[in-house]
Amino acid sequence: MTYIQQLGINAKSAEKQTASLKAADKNAVLELIAKRLLEERELIKAENAKDIQNAHTNGMTAALIDRLTLTDARIDGMAEGVRQVRALADPVGEVIGGGEIQNGLKLVKRRVPLGVIGIIFESRPNVTVDAASLCLKSGNVCILRGGSDAINSNKALVTLMRSALRDCGVDENAIQLVEDTSREVASEMMRLRQYIDVLIPRGGGGLISAVVNNSTIPVIETGEGNCHVFVDESADLGMALDIVDNAKTQRPSVCNAIETVIVHAKIADEFYTALEKRWEVGQPGQKARIIPDGVATDEDYATEFLDYVIAAKTVNNLDEAIAHINRFGTKHSEAIVTRDYANAVKFQDEVDAAAVYVNASTRFTDGFVFGLGAEIGITTQKLHARGPMGLQELTTYKYLINGDGQVRG
Amino acid sequence: MTYIQQLGINAKSAEKQTASLKAADKNAVLELIAKRLLEERELIKAENAKDIQNAHTNGMTAALIDRLTLTDARIDGMAEGVRQVRALADPVGEVIGGGEIQNGLKLVKRRVPLGVIGIIFESRPNVTVDAASLCLKSGNVCILRGGSDAINSNKALVTLMRSALRDCGVDENAIQLVEDTSREVASEMMRLRQYIDVLIPRGGGGLISAVVNNSTIPVIETGEGNCHVFVDESADLGMALDIVDNAKTQRPSVCNAIETVIVHAKIADEFYTALEKRWEVGQPGQKARIIPDGVATDEDYATEFLDYVIAAKTVNNLDEAIAHINRFGTKHSEAIVTRDYANAVKFQDEVDAAAVYVNASTRFTDGFVFGLGAEIGITTQKLHARGPMGLQELTTYKYLINGDGQVRG
Repeated sequence: MTYIQQLGINAKSAEKQTASLKAADKNAVLELIAKRLLEERELIKAENAKDIQNAHTNGMTAALIDRLTLTDARIDGMAEGVRQVRALADPVGEVIGGGEIQNGLKLVKRRVPLGVIGIIFESRPNVTVDAASLCLKSGNVCILRGGSDAINSNKALVTLMRSALRDCGVDENAIQLVEDTSREVASEMMRLRQYIDVLIPRGGGGLISAVVNNSTIPVIETGEGNCHVFVDESADLGMALDIVDNAKTQRPSVCNAIETVIVHAKIADEFYTALEKRWEVGQPGQKARIIPDGVATDEDYATEFLDYVIAAKTVNNLDEAIAHINRFGTKHSEAIVTRDYANAVKFQDEVDAAAVYVNASTRFTDGFVFGLGAEIGITTQKLHARGPMGLQELTTYKYLINGDGQVRG
Repeated sequence: MTYIQQLGINAKSAEKQTASLKAADKNAVLELIAKRLLEERELIKAENAKDIQNAHTNGMTAALIDRLTLTDARIDGMAEGVRQVRALADPVGEVIGGGEIQNGLKLVKRRVPLGVIGIIFESRPNVTVDAASLCLKSGNVCILRGGSDAINSNKALVTLMRSALRDCGVDENAIQLVEDTSREVASEMMRLRQYIDVLIPRGGGGLISAVVNNSTIPVIETGEGNCHVFVDESADLGMALDIVDNAKTQRPSVCNAIETVIVHAKIADEFYTALEKRWEVGQPGQKARIIPDGVATDEDYATEFLDYVIAAKTVNNLDEAIAHINRFGTKHSEAIVTRDYANAVKFQDEVDAAAVYVNASTRFTDGFVFGLGAEIGITTQKLHARGPMGLQELTTYKYLINGDGQVRG
């Protein structure tokens, strides 16, 4: 029996109770988690300080240390996030189809939890609470494997959540943390088909590739966003500037920010000049550096900068723009700025992505904005869930068929 | 450029046209395929005869040779199947959600094809036509990899289907056959993430394990059915006998037939005696051999016999029955025969399977019976599609968002 197998057995043993919890019971646990996050903030910050100390020792960049740091405001935010999940409708048990099917057999298609969800993520400790809350509300058991950088913070948060489960009479193994953050244990976790139903990596392209290449568990890929705005010949240039600026600089570190602006050749000079001017007069830190067409390489076009950097690509027509996007994009969020009706329709038909915008910023791709309430990630695959993945997407369904002795002829 | 990479490139080049075909265009192709299957039946049978000849030479069992053989009746059945798919509603383009979401942004959730589907299957050549028809109708391109045993039959069938595509002005690469049936090519196909969006293995447990363990493409597992009927203490014994008999012997080679009967201890003697008697007086070939409780091993309980063999398991209560099913079952189809309301509810709540029956045979798990029109397989996983997988389950969706300059604040 290995360490991770034991976690798998624990998870399976908690699965039945977790799946059958009533909404009120799950909400009570979530409220207690939110309350304790606020009450025990000093303990959380003290454990987080150890991670920050180690990060400094290990020479982690300031940006990554910032992501790792739990301030009072971020702890308030985590508690608020848990209360938002608490307020969402419980997806479990919803009847999503059915009727009388044959020989008087009655069929009901009922939404049920997926079971045991493995989540592999990087160093932001708020993901720990966020993911666990969403899994619990959707009746799923979770096994959380965060990065070694955040291990002390994650231990404190998971200990707190498990105490809330226990105090509400729920098996604490509904939420488990993989405390051994070695690569070997992570690899073994990716092949724990017997105990884990779905694996969700949350993080950059490297993490996702590693999981996709090693996992034998069904994987939901999330979070890799190489997104584009195409400024068509007929675009309103003011609108195009606003959209490109917003999609690039409003929050460059997120997956729905853009990495390349594609511009129709007929307006390219005018647009690039105006864009440079806009970012010249922007506030410090809000300018993006442009890698011009001709200088930008295929590698640039394939890069998710997650920074104040944008590649530029000039094209002769809409088909070239669509071809560029379908070649380099990660099927996340793509936008066209145009006044041409046929081009708008063609772009939305032919671009292969989860979210395809006309005359709006790609930054709107978000579970809350799309009406899903919250999200555990934004997927870039086509199976199961595409785009923002909310509580419903954390469920599957089963068919219940009731008869009075029917046999097949 | 390897052989299979070339097929991948061909498939991707056909994807855009295939995805945008109107229902009438797809139906015209399907009608022509059906017509030519009937017209060219002598050619098909001649090619099939080569496979049968090779099968005899290779010492294939009579049962497998039967599965391989294309008779006039089976060719009629294939053509009829294509016409049934033709008659189904086109799932592509259906709007499955949407509304005004924020700042006046309008969102539409539209059903779209998955893209390129790889299908890996064993020696029944009718799967070739069946799978290709369903993929085409749902706007998907397919790459079919059948077994080497049926290669001549499959070549004839795919050549016929490609000629129908061509004659209707559709890129013939919408349907391709992997003519090199070596294991190396199959392995390479399982890692062709760049060109194949989804991989569907159709066949026994060995094939599915091989695909799950080797594929980096998202996989939909289908067709492995270790199913059970539990005869509860309160069961109507006549009904229980009818259901067990039907679920085991009506067609033992299919995935929704049962492999083990679980019987409550209080009625076990009476039930087993009645079941033995029933099969004694049955017609030849319709008796099943019972492996009694105490003789049956864990290996027997884990085996999908696909034959006139059934393992028996005696339990002391419902919980033991559910535990046995959740341990050995493949999450396919499970049934209870009972007159006890609470036990019926508990069984349906706690058994983890795609289809859970009360007082009916497991044999009803079928895309047509469940109202899906047809099926490309019955999945035993929880992601994307559970149970019968029809045309809708061969699609994904994309979000289309239309604005007039909205940016995120």
